[in-house]
Amino acid sequence: MTTLTPAILSELEKQSIELPSWAFGNSGTRFKVFGTPGTPRDPWEKIADAAQVNKYTALAPAVALHIPWDLVDSYDDLRKHAEDLGVALGTVNSNTFQDDEYKFGALTHEDAAVRQKAIDHHLACIDVMDATGSRDLKIWLAEGSNYPGQADLRGRQDRLNESLQKIYARLGDDQRLVLEYKFFEPAFYHTDVPDWGTSYAQVSTLGDKAMVCLDTGHHAPGTNIEFIVMQLLRLGKLGSFDFNSRFYADDDLIVGAADPFQLFRILFEVIRGGGLNNPDVAFMLDQCHNVEDKIPGQIRSVLNVQEMTARALLVDKDALTAAQKSGDVLAANAVFMDAFYTDVRPELAAWRESRGLAGDPMAAYAASGYQAKIAADRVGGVQAGWGA
Amino acid sequence: MTTLTPAILSELEKQSIELPSWAFGNSGTRFKVFGTPGTPRDPWEKIADAAQVNKYTALAPAVALHIPWDLVDSYDDLRKHAEDLGVALGTVNSNTFQDDEYKFGALTHEDAAVRQKAIDHHLACIDVMDATGSRDLKIWLAEGSNYPGQADLRGRQDRLNESLQKIYARLGDDQRLVLEYKFFEPAFYHTDVPDWGTSYAQVSTLGDKAMVCLDTGHHAPGTNIEFIVMQLLRLGKLGSFDFNSRFYADDDLIVGAADPFQLFRILFEVIRGGGLNNPDVAFMLDQCHNVEDKIPGQIRSVLNVQEMTARALLVDKDALTAAQKSGDVLAANAVFMDAFYTDVRPELAAWRESRGLAGDPMAAYAASGYQAKIAADRVGGVQAGWGA
Amino acid sequence: MTTLTPAILSELEKQSIELPSWAFGNSGTRFKVFGTPGTPRDPWEKIADAAQVNKYTALAPAVALHIPWDLVDSYDDLRKHAEDLGVALGTVNSNTFQDDEYKFGALTHEDAAVRQKAIDHHLACIDVMDATGSRDLKIWLAEGSNYPGQADLRGRQDRLNESLQKIYARLGDDQRLVLEYKFFEPAFYHTDVPDWGTSYAQVSTLGDKAMVCLDTGHHAPGTNIEFIVMQLLRLGKLGSFDFNSRFYADDDLIVGAADPFQLFRILFEVIRGGGLNNPDVAFMLDQCHNVEDKIPGQIRSVLNVQEMTARALLVDKDALTAAQKSGDVLAANAVFMDAFYTDVRPELAAWRESRGLAGDPMAAYAASGYQAKIAADRVGGVQAGWGA
Amino acid sequence: MTTLTPAILSELEKQSIELPSWAFGNSGTRFKVFGTPGTPRDPWEKIADAAQVNKYTALAPAVALHIPWDLVDSYDDLRKHAEDLGVALGTVNSNTFQDDEYKFGALTHEDAAVRQKAIDHHLACIDVMDATGSRDLKIWLAEGSNYPGQADLRGRQDRLNESLQKIYARLGDDQRLVLEYKFFEPAFYHTDVPDWGTSYAQVSTLGDKAMVCLDTGHHAPGTNIEFIVMQLLRLGKLGSFDFNSRFYADDDLIVGAADPFQLFRILFEVIRGGGLNNPDVAFMLDQCHNVEDKIPGQIRSVLNVQEMTARALLVDKDALTAAQKSGDVLAANAVFMDAFYTDVRPELAAWRESRGLAGDPMAAYAASGYQAKIAADRVGGVQAGWGA
Repeated sequence: MTTLTPAILSELEKQSIELPSWAFGNSGTRFKVFGTPGTPRDPWEKIADAAQVNKYTALAPAVALHIPWDLVDSYDDLRKHAEDLGVALGTVNSNTFQDDEYKFGALTHEDAAVRQKAIDHHLACIDVMDATGSRDLKIWLAEGSNYPGQADLRGRQDRLNESLQKIYARLGDDQRLVLEYKFFEPAFYHTDVPDWGTSYAQVSTLGDKAMVCLDTGHHAPGTNIEFIVMQLLRLGKLGSFDFNSRFYADDDLIVGAADPFQLFRILFEVIRGGGLNNPDVAFMLDQCHNVEDKIPGQIRSVLNVQEMTARALLVDKDALTAAQKSGDVLAANAVFMDAFYTDVRPELAAWRESRGLAGDPMAAYAASGYQAKIAADRVGGVQAGWGA
Repeated sequence: MTTLTPAILSELEKQSIELPSWAFGNSGTRFKVFGTPGTPRDPWEKIADAAQVNKYTALAPAVALHIPWDLVDSYDDLRKHAEDLGVALGTVNSNTFQDDEYKFGALTHEDAAVRQKAIDHHLACIDVMDATGSRDLKIWLAEGSNYPGQADLRGRQDRLNESLQKIYARLGDDQRLVLEYKFFEPAFYHTDVPDWGTSYAQVSTLGDKAMVCLDTGHHAPGTNIEFIVMQLLRLGKLGSFDFNSRFYADDDLIVGAADPFQLFRILFEVIRGGGLNNPDVAFMLDQCHNVEDKIPGQIRSVLNVQEMTARALLVDKDALTAAQKSGDVLAANAVFMDAFYTDVRPELAAWRESRGLAGDPMAAYAASGYQAKIAADRVGGVQAGWGA
Repeated sequence: MTTLTPAILSELEKQSIELPSWAFGNSGTRFKVFGTPGTPRDPWEKIADAAQVNKYTALAPAVALHIPWDLVDSYDDLRKHAEDLGVALGTVNSNTFQDDEYKFGALTHEDAAVRQKAIDHHLACIDVMDATGSRDLKIWLAEGSNYPGQADLRGRQDRLNESLQKIYARLGDDQRLVLEYKFFEPAFYHTDVPDWGTSYAQVSTLGDKAMVCLDTGHHAPGTNIEFIVMQLLRLGKLGSFDFNSRFYADDDLIVGAADPFQLFRILFEVIRGGGLNNPDVAFMLDQCHNVEDKIPGQIRSVLNVQEMTARALLVDKDALTAAQKSGDVLAANAVFMDAFYTDVRPELAAWRESRGLAGDPMAAYAASGYQAKIAADRVGGVQAGWGA
Repeated sequence: MTTLTPAILSELEKQSIELPSWAFGNSGTRFKVFGTPGTPRDPWEKIADAAQVNKYTALAPAVALHIPWDLVDSYDDLRKHAEDLGVALGTVNSNTFQDDEYKFGALTHEDAAVRQKAIDHHLACIDVMDATGSRDLKIWLAEGSNYPGQADLRGRQDRLNESLQKIYARLGDDQRLVLEYKFFEPAFYHTDVPDWGTSYAQVSTLGDKAMVCLDTGHHAPGTNIEFIVMQLLRLGKLGSFDFNSRFYADDDLIVGAADPFQLFRILFEVIRGGGLNNPDVAFMLDQCHNVEDKIPGQIRSVLNVQEMTARALLVDKDALTAAQKSGDVLAANAVFMDAFYTDVRPELAAWRESRGLAGDPMAAYAASGYQAKIAADRVGGVQAGWGA
């Protein structure tokens, strides 16, 4: 029985998911960061690891950088290094949460000098983008406050807008700014960009090159995330996804691991709204592999997105529309669930093989010996960590 | 020691909180609605009860109507009845959730005929507004779906916009439309206007006379509501409040009962953003007194808002700003908390007496004999219920 | 490819899921209860409808009663009626939430006379059990308070225990009491049996015939329900399940509809802990079909449980244990997910046919004409509602 | 007007709140730990800082230790150092979350050797208790898993019990074990002691010297914490509190900062259940001062507990009981709120002065010059951090 039609396979063939360089370094919680053998010690090694994911899946042709974690002397060299390994350098992520001066804010800080420092950092990130050919500057802000009264919420919002205007003005014609929102953490009482509405209101004042980034782990409990996907696509402001999954807070687990059905619903709305393989909507992972192996963790992640995209593409839209129009709740839900419950894995494996890839990328990677090699080679030096 | 300065008392004197007519009828949960002696049997009796709240507090000079629950033959007569009792008719609330045809939506329904019926209902509500002199049409929509796949989220959002455009076009020059959002209930899987961002995106396409209504009980767990108050005031789109409080879902408890400090923070942001005694921002209650007495429940509610407004006005803004600018977290929080912990009740009682009101409105109402009188008089007929 | 081994099919053949009689009546939210053609008007018609579910699935051989909603003059007759239709009368559910006297509690009430009334109701339920041959008395209590200070939490807990002791004392040797817990609703501030710990602490003082009932929709957001399943099985106190699903509150949606993977995890722990087809652990549905058809809604529900049980039985326990012991997180998770993602539906359909059942029970019921028949026959009288 | 009666002041005089040594070191989130001048570099300096809190408040006569963070060569010397500064050494906290071997568990680990190591660590903690004269061993476990399937939930629970039995067996006659529960973090999918029910079930099997520790920040959203306080006191198993506050997750903010009314309700139930100044129930702080000053943060914290205890003692219990018994919801709530809204601060300040303390401990500490002194003195060395 063939369920994955040529049209579906054609969409899947185009699918591309950007990997975060920081997923290959060590990460953890405030309680402990566990180290693992073979962890990269510099951006070059992170990109080498990322290229392994693409090698076995053909799904991950770009690697997102995080500045300053991925600062190098020559981005020309880094780009060539990446290209030699079959991948490109992708989105540039700024960081305004690890300097002592940012304790009480960066783009929103009361002190104009601190704000300027944070703005300058973003301008430097755009310099990197010019060198790497990256299109997107992704801005996630750790800014907020821990205690009521600590901060002037309104003043901060106004200052945020001023700062973003200055960064936006520096963008090249083919560059974009995507503003990520996050419900809470690391600030506990208030966060300056806590929800999609705030990100949308902010980027709407900037211009067409400013978009919203939706991280699937950054919402309050019970939030219907696919509704937000629908709304942002409808408003023309969904710039990118940070995929991961969560049980409670911003757990940054493997995408699809905590609630596979939620991922299905999200991808269905992506397709419904024209966001699949649409260059305006970047697919990216943002995960932390605290207790599991990192390269296989990333392989598992992109496969999860691929498999669930295949299922979402299987939804019989005509039957669904007919059931919706007739108010047949159970029939509509049945059409939807039928696609979700279809096991696309055997066909996907066969299709991979038809394209010269391993049917089981996890097994192929495990058999490759790469992990043992890096464990042996990467001795000495300082392992890259999530914050390094 | 006097803490409530003339400037503060002047603000408090201007304060006005609209009462919902439906708060005086019986209400409950899906499990049971308990009846109480003296419950009104028609809109005239509801307004008489509402007038009691204003009589003892001078805080509640207007009563919001709910159509069709408050349909009468002559709104001229109802207005005169209200005026004779010292109150005005206020916001008109539409209802598109109790007709069988609305089972799968109203303004968003797949069927144009059902949508038109719902639109027509809103036009009829504006007719009522013309007769009563009401300014605001408040739209809360129960629309959504219970099962993934049941509804076309995107199509519904587009249809919602079309329907709202038609309603908006009918508004008079001095009339407004306020669109309320709600996280969940009565739909369980998706709600068509679930968050402030959606309400804001929708009303922004309509025009200046369309605003957002913020119900304090309609957010996901952990949401920072005062941040949304700040943001909507900043964007010029906060049209009205529905005050109540909640522990878990949309409990519709007495405002300030569940988390008094949250109410303080909300009112602080109202003041900070220029929303207090600003005609653009209507203060309204939306509560259900399931187990407590209704008239005293409403008296307690408006007093809670008044007392907490007094505390929020007490915040020493200069000291707060100085602490915020210097990054002194504990000092800023202390300025904030000092106002919250100040017991303004004795001074407010004295001030009430100075204005010819009872110092203790709850006790004065209890002593008035009104409750016994309505319990004796209102025998026979059908008690008004939340949905009647 | 055959994945469902004889051992698995043997387990599935034994599976039995009790249906709630009230699922066949109308239900809704505090906003609206929608009616549907053909809704039963009395317990006899409810049981007839329930028998349809069993007819097409062979999964639902018992029907739970709710007293007083299902009061009849002769339980002998009702039992014969059920048996004639191929089903048995099952668990008896008490109701202490719809009398005016229970406004402030029943088994916990301050007034001994009200408590005695509630105790007597439970004793009457046991009389019904004697007549029907039911084993289990299920107690769900709506008791709690809406405002801090309203109730004496400690006194209520002590009174609850006294009342339960009296009910327990009346149980026959082969009868049990199962005490359900619920996080919130209809009380908003506190609930007298809010969590498994409270139910466990209470029933532990009663004796071996008192157990905990776990309703899958009665937990705080983010709660790991399968952990509780594991713990109660470990403690020997898991008496029964009320299956349903939820997105936010106690939505009472079709089991498995909101989070199929959660249902998988729960059933895996049932199997792991020896709870599958164990007479000590009753499987029951507790759902409300507010917008979908009721009989097909129940058919869909028992099929969901069956399909997910099949998947949970597919987990390769040896491989799982090996991966767990070696700390191979990705491998362990992969074994687990492999079972979840396996599409068991075609094999289950074939197996059903081999047993003389329809491969697709939903289609078979739809084709049977039963729905049209009851819509035509059941005209006049008062439709059964959730609270009737 | 005097509201704090001699009986109330007598209770307040007896009040004692243990401070955590780790609150004086640096702490932060996974994103960043900010350093501050004057931060202690060893246990001796932490105790010196803790003694400052007691000096200005007379509320904090004991300091809890964390092993191995507070390992010293001679606990005799440390005890004498503490006594010289007017404080005692209190609860000993174990740590099984920072060794690489504990990546997949400690007391629950699959490997008996790892379990034994974790057990031995607890035995070593009891050795410290013998040396310091501490009564309580507090066990908080970071154990759990991040992915479904990763761990055998049931096996871990059984192993946990075995390990606890071995630790319990080593306790002296006057020593206790308190087992803390936590909803989530650092494990994301499951936690081995996630709720009070699990902690209660575990300690109940150990014996009378094993109790539950309730950390106010360790519950699912919406949990009624005062209910749990009531229940554990009722069951005789509330061993200690870890006080702090939170807006969303385990924020570890200053107690009373996020929801003062919740703290009031908790303390009311403590009093109601006989837990105030009851030696069986230890009051302790467990907080992280990420962005605020640490010593004043602790002073503010113990004052918050004292002030809220005073308010909770003000509740007119006779009036409350009368209103509760008569079902007068508003009157009962009014009695409760009246106490909460009473401003006890001026009277407490006067009372402090009458006892030879500063009326305003925060101001007195600020004026003391201690902060400047430690900032100047404590240069060089390694600052103590939360994990060090």
